[in-house]
Amino acid sequence: MKLLEERIRRDGVVREGNILKVDSFLNHQMDIPLFCELGREFQKRFATENITKILTIEASGIGLACIVAQYFKVPVVFAKKSKTKNIAGDVFTSRVESFTHGRVYDIIVSKQFLGPEDRVLLIDDFLANGKALEGLAALVENAGATLVGAGVAIEKGFQIGGDLIRKRGIHLESLAIVESMDPATGEITFRPDN
Amino acid sequence: MKLLEERIRRDGVVREGNILKVDSFLNHQMDIPLFCELGREFQKRFATENITKILTIEASGIGLACIVAQYFKVPVVFAKKSKTKNIAGDVFTSRVESFTHGRVYDIIVSKQFLGPEDRVLLIDDFLANGKALEGLAALVENAGATLVGAGVAIEKGFQIGGDLIRKRGIHLESLAIVESMDPATGEITFRPDN
Repeated sequence: MKLLEERIRRDGVVREGNILKVDSFLNHQMDIPLFCELGREFQKRFATENITKILTIEASGIGLACIVAQYFKVPVVFAKKSKTKNIAGDVFTSRVESFTHGRVYDIIVSKQFLGPEDRVLLIDDFLANGKALEGLAALVENAGATLVGAGVAIEKGFQIGGDLIRKRGIHLESLAIVESMDPATGEITFRPDN
Repeated sequence: MKLLEERIRRDGVVREGNILKVDSFLNHQMDIPLFCELGREFQKRFATENITKILTIEASGIGLACIVAQYFKVPVVFAKKSKTKNIAGDVFTSRVESFTHGRVYDIIVSKQFLGPEDRVLLIDDFLANGKALEGLAALVENAGATLVGAGVAIEKGFQIGGDLIRKRGIHLESLAIVESMDPATGEITFRPDN
């Protein structure tokens, strides 16, 4: 999506260690009119899927998911990161390994809010190693719901997450796929849109 | 706000220990059309304030803040909860005491995203002891920005937060103020709207 690529080129900052900082518009400060454009684009790409619910994960996915949900006219559920080992009974749970934070945590969703009747779209701001999306997909499976697909704003195409998700047969739509980036020059190359 | 009060009466669950569960529409599953109505209402109540930025705190405030921001046509910044004691230089920081989780944590906002030119509206889903709003207000003060006010969806009127915030001279708008609630009968009494 050209609009998003241009914004990443303009305001993204490339750092050593494959870090792309987009916190001026995506995941710390949030540009709501941009989110609306992303929402319209996701709606186009998943228009025929009869989605009933959007599922995301706290914290930085929530804002985008809520704006996107307006275009699908469905509720958002966000999975909570749980620090406690002992989780109360009425939740679906799965495990997520975070490379960024070097730890493993459980994510939970109340059983009230996800069920066999649901057709679920996953939304997140970033896709790198794919662990968060895999965790969310596991929650959908546990609930007996239908996983319609996943939409992310930015995919780091040089990390394994995108391939992992696509190989599992999940319909993944990434609005901008970073193919490579150079911390010395700040140059960012995107995978061409299909 | 009648619409919100009716929704709390219909879908809220009162539990022992002053707990009001509204996670079916406010802070786990999120009803986006309802959020839009709350956004319109906040916009009416702060219409003349020339707000330039909405500030909230992760995680459950983010969704509401993003929807509300559409009506003000301003960006959202969310304060991050930090677990690390040593925080990198370029952030404003303040301390929040959480009664719910029985711990103290730091909240941070990058200095890039809050400055003297900003007129800031705080948005959060819940107000109980007021510690989160106080922490956010301290960030605004640290940044030299102007705190225009605070908007919360639900205030627990029988806890000290609302009084605390109002006594500090902060323009607080709570869309529903729970005066009392009874876990035995499930009955909820609201403070009359002005």
